[in-house]
Amino acid sequence: MLSALTALPLALAAPVDEGMWTFDNPPVEAIQQRYGVKLTPEWLEHVQKSAVRVSTGGSGSIVSANGLVMTNHHVASDILDKLSSAENNLLDAGFWAATLEDEIPCPDVHLDVLWSIEDVTARVEAAAAGLSPAEAGAARMSAMTAIEDAAKARPGMHTEVVTLYQGGRYHLYTYRRFEDIRLVFAPEKSIAFYGGDGDNFEYPRFCLDVTFLRIYEDGEPYTPEHFLTWSADGADEGECTFVVGHPGRTQRLNTVAHLEYLRDHQVPSSMQGLMRSEVLLNIFGQASPETARIAENDLFSVQNSRKVYVGRMAGLLDPAVFAAKRQEESRLRAAVDANPEWKARWSGAWDEVAAAQDSIVSFRDRLNALGGGNLRLGARTASIAITLVRLADELEKPSAERLREYGDAALPSLYQGLYSPAPIYPDYEIFNLEWALSNMAEQLGGDDPLVIAALGGKSARARAEELVLGTKLMDIDVRKRLANGGAEALAAANDPMIEFVKALDAEGRALRKRYEGEVQAVERAAYAKIAAARFAVLGDSVYPDATFTLRISYGKVAGYQDGEEQIPAFTNFGGVYSKARERAGEEWYTLPASWTTAAPTVDRSTPFNLVTDHDIIGGNSGSPVIDAKGEVVGLIFDGNIHSLIGNFAYSDVKARSVSVDSRGIVGALRDVYGAKRLVRELTGE
Amino acid sequence: MLSALTALPLALAAPVDEGMWTFDNPPVEAIQQRYGVKLTPEWLEHVQKSAVRVSTGGSGSIVSANGLVMTNHHVASDILDKLSSAENNLLDAGFWAATLEDEIPCPDVHLDVLWSIEDVTARVEAAAAGLSPAEAGAARMSAMTAIEDAAKARPGMHTEVVTLYQGGRYHLYTYRRFEDIRLVFAPEKSIAFYGGDGDNFEYPRFCLDVTFLRIYEDGEPYTPEHFLTWSADGADEGECTFVVGHPGRTQRLNTVAHLEYLRDHQVPSSMQGLMRSEVLLNIFGQASPETARIAENDLFSVQNSRKVYVGRMAGLLDPAVFAAKRQEESRLRAAVDANPEWKARWSGAWDEVAAAQDSIVSFRDRLNALGGGNLRLGARTASIAITLVRLADELEKPSAERLREYGDAALPSLYQGLYSPAPIYPDYEIFNLEWALSNMAEQLGGDDPLVIAALGGKSARARAEELVLGTKLMDIDVRKRLANGGAEALAAANDPMIEFVKALDAEGRALRKRYEGEVQAVERAAYAKIAAARFAVLGDSVYPDATFTLRISYGKVAGYQDGEEQIPAFTNFGGVYSKARERAGEEWYTLPASWTTAAPTVDRSTPFNLVTDHDIIGGNSGSPVIDAKGEVVGLIFDGNIHSLIGNFAYSDVKARSVSVDSRGIVGALRDVYGAKRLVRELTGE
Repeated sequence: MLSALTALPLALAAPVDEGMWTFDNPPVEAIQQRYGVKLTPEWLEHVQKSAVRVSTGGSGSIVSANGLVMTNHHVASDILDKLSSAENNLLDAGFWAATLEDEIPCPDVHLDVLWSIEDVTARVEAAAAGLSPAEAGAARMSAMTAIEDAAKARPGMHTEVVTLYQGGRYHLYTYRRFEDIRLVFAPEKSIAFYGGDGDNFEYPRFCLDVTFLRIYEDGEPYTPEHFLTWSADGADEGECTFVVGHPGRTQRLNTVAHLEYLRDHQVPSSMQGLMRSEVLLNIFGQASPETARIAENDLFSVQNSRKVYVGRMAGLLDPAVFAAKRQEESRLRAAVDANPEWKARWSGAWDEVAAAQDSIVSFRDRLNALGGGNLRLGARTASIAITLVRLADELEKPSAERLREYGDAALPSLYQGLYSPAPIYPDYEIFNLEWALSNMAEQLGGDDPLVIAALGGKSARARAEELVLGTKLMDIDVRKRLANGGAEALAAANDPMIEFVKALDAEGRALRKRYEGEVQAVERAAYAKIAAARFAVLGDSVYPDATFTLRISYGKVAGYQDGEEQIPAFTNFGGVYSKARERAGEEWYTLPASWTTAAPTVDRSTPFNLVTDHDIIGGNSGSPVIDAKGEVVGLIFDGNIHSLIGNFAYSDVKARSVSVDSRGIVGALRDVYGAKRLVRELTGE
Repeated sequence: MLSALTALPLALAAPVDEGMWTFDNPPVEAIQQRYGVKLTPEWLEHVQKSAVRVSTGGSGSIVSANGLVMTNHHVASDILDKLSSAENNLLDAGFWAATLEDEIPCPDVHLDVLWSIEDVTARVEAAAAGLSPAEAGAARMSAMTAIEDAAKARPGMHTEVVTLYQGGRYHLYTYRRFEDIRLVFAPEKSIAFYGGDGDNFEYPRFCLDVTFLRIYEDGEPYTPEHFLTWSADGADEGECTFVVGHPGRTQRLNTVAHLEYLRDHQVPSSMQGLMRSEVLLNIFGQASPETARIAENDLFSVQNSRKVYVGRMAGLLDPAVFAAKRQEESRLRAAVDANPEWKARWSGAWDEVAAAQDSIVSFRDRLNALGGGNLRLGARTASIAITLVRLADELEKPSAERLREYGDAALPSLYQGLYSPAPIYPDYEIFNLEWALSNMAEQLGGDDPLVIAALGGKSARARAEELVLGTKLMDIDVRKRLANGGAEALAAANDPMIEFVKALDAEGRALRKRYEGEVQAVERAAYAKIAAARFAVLGDSVYPDATFTLRISYGKVAGYQDGEEQIPAFTNFGGVYSKARERAGEEWYTLPASWTTAAPTVDRSTPFNLVTDHDIIGGNSGSPVIDAKGEVVGLIFDGNIHSLIGNFAYSDVKARSVSVDSRGIVGALRDVYGAKRLVRELTGE
């Protein structure tokens, strides 16, 4: 792996398809040099305004003149789960709206389309000038909220100040937000997630990981100015293509000390926590088919994250990764130290980041035991309770002085979550809360005052039962009444779950404040210096780490060599039938009836999945792969196992992005599902 | 649960069926008072010498004049696994030797029958008199080895000095050991472990968790002086019955401080480690049916332990448990403090135990990362390597000065394991070693010198591959040559796995020594005082915690009330067919072909499983349940979920032992498997 790792960003000169670039700074020249493709401002605006961010945590794109949106099945699975019941399981059975009238409204989801970007770094930093690190951190957050609130003048718009370069830049992102979203088509999960957890992050693959939604405005399909057209021919091996989407988070610009903290503390404990959740969700699901259904979506999500963390852990233990990072850091520091002015301004930053890591180690167990200080304790009713309790406190203050997520600009999303009609299952709530309480005790010890307060003199199970069976928060009207009634209504409610979170909230807030002051604020200030040093040394040719905001990646369709094996770029429909024969009898390799019925008639040479060398990461799920004309040739749904190091460094040797081929999507819609209305809308045929 | 917990042992006056009693101190009077059954010395000797301990970690009994041994399928599963291959999977298919000649030799297994018990406390303690705690600990271990060696005069005998009452007593147990063991009958795991991990520790149950082995001597079936006869009628609800077996470990006599250590450190971290292993074994098993087969037996074992630890964790967080323990401890301490002589002698002991817990907290992560100081790192070849390395060192010393498991009396078992012909799968070795290396780094940090030495400048995966693919230790002849050749042969071998463990052994030994000196020795000395105090206050009516040595428990067949539900004591064959219909399509509820074929003809009213209130724990698996006549009425294979608190306290309210009914065993052998030879041998019919 050594040769594969580029020591970022001093190695950017190397001709690799690296980078998740923001739309205000696309690497137009590099792309032209490498592929002879010149991206125009018009092309960029067109694809920017055709891309959507899905509030369930993924990407998508508008793909018709009537507001049709394409994303992944696994991005929409949260929606499908909420629309499902014991009698009607959309994850199992799939869904197809034969007519427009059959399209069904999706709960709790909104789609954002990026409208504009503005650099507000100077305003944010001006607020922090001359303050202590913790005060500066609070002042920056206040300024960010104030900027968001001021910009949020028009209804239907959403604003966010985004922290780029770990604190090196602050940009105001303004989005058009769409809230009436309906379900059009989803395949069965058995083909969407063919091969299950075992094949996740593997290749070759055979997954129809697609779902179509539609944006509505005023009760009618939305007619967008910009949408992506469908490629008739797909992409060829070696062809230059682009991925436009919302990568969630990378940590490539972290200092070595910061990476050591991740390696020795954060990643092991997150991985361990995910493994624990995986076992517990399996236990809950074993009781009956219905408990299995209830836990399934969470289980997929946990297994997926666990695989990501397993890959990160392995990457962080690879000496090649640290060697490259150390080399890059020492080169940058040497360049800074060689210039007296730079040295005076920036050379202390690396030690400041290191000090922040030492600080968090001393209280991270408490912070984690209290759900990051926000009492995220697994049970939805506990999350609802803490949201209500904090909402009552925060709304007393001016917007800019509140906790960030309670600022005016953020409130619509907060209320959408708070009033979500998604079903809540008491048994599942009890189970999750029991284990969150146990976890608190396991982390802090049974005699810790916080644990004693949380358990209230009962066993974890008995306490969880008492709280879940006693709360009224499953009733949406109760939530609304309490949200509107403020502190007084909360006190009068005498709800055990509310009293429970109230008892823990003071320490939760204190831990969060400590984290924000001692760690986050210090990191932001120090990374701002490091970013300035990078820009001074390297110019603008540095992309920021991923922040779940819109990025463009460039690259090509490319198979790869894995050990002795040459892995081809494409799979086809024939491959999934072969695989099903080969692994007959195994749950996750069993094809749904639709595919076995269609077996005699489908064209087995239809391309199904493909790999490209684009630089992507979790959050890019659902991103369109487009060609130089801006036409859809694929749909990102995964990376291979070698791509998991991508959190820390890009590699193009074996790391690949995995997509559904546009020809496979249309082929399946037409020949397996008979979804003619949808095929016509996509292709005009 | 509060009322159910007996505060041990001051509450022994309460009329409950509590206790795992040693055969030198059976509660004959209590049994007679409670059930009117008088156990004679002859009866006790008869059942003692009919009971066997299985080296795979369970119990069993001799049940015919021709050395037939009954145990659980899950006790024998290790044997079945070693006898299986991709082509011939005995766990899946079961096994039945239609004739004596078809019985197949079992690798790596021996059976021990307890022959005599001798109190050697005075000799062990004499060796420790006047020494510092750590020296005293070493001296006691030396004395124990010397006593074992001296007693091991006759071939075919095995000796062990057992630490009872956490150090309050030392007894020499002498066993007859049998090493030629053959497989007679095993059902399919789908009926032996019906309901899988989901139903494990649950009730009602429907498991044929039985396997029959046979002891051979000089190539012929063994003809024992003592064996248990088969009951024609089984047991009735409420009938007084006994369990004779080898409970592995309980921690009921631990001090409150010791239990707090378990609650806050040992149990959470063991539980977490088991959950990690469970996820990793699932990952390994997903790759193909063959990897699933390879990992299956380990996965069962890990899931079973995980369930035990989940139950322990829940129990330790139940305030009722600690309240009872605190009450018992303060009563005993009050009684000690009330007597000036007792006070002077014993009152400091509780603080000494507490100090030992504080000590271990400071180095337990290192100890665990190094596999308890013994480099048990998941890979069999690493275990073989460390055994060879230490063997070479230890054999240079007199027996009594060696590490305990290298003493002369222990060597036969050690060589049996070292030369085991059980298959070793390189991919599985690599996977397990990779994750043990990763675990070391996760626990200690990537820059720890030990981690750096272990990884040797490579990623965990690359290092594991290098070691496993480079070692010659999969070859049994190589192991024999190296074991016989000592240090010189080891150095000449230039085997990477041997060099790997050598590099870590110094710290491994140092950590083990530290544990034995600072923790174990201190605990033993302190618990000896606490035991003396208990005996002084309570007389002999105290049973020692379980130590994987022979015990007798008394009790009765009894259903129980669980919430609203009355759980009946017995299930029957009809129940398993109903269950299979109810959970149709789920892997673990699918009956094997033998049972579906037999469905029309079996007598559905045949009792299948039953529950009793005997005091048992892990290790009791395979114990016979016998009636007052000493006849077999059942076969222990599990406890229900409520019994998991049994590690810390006995309860008879909802906690139950779960057995296969003797009538179900014979019914299945006759009507499902047509195993007439075996039925005749058991019942004479």
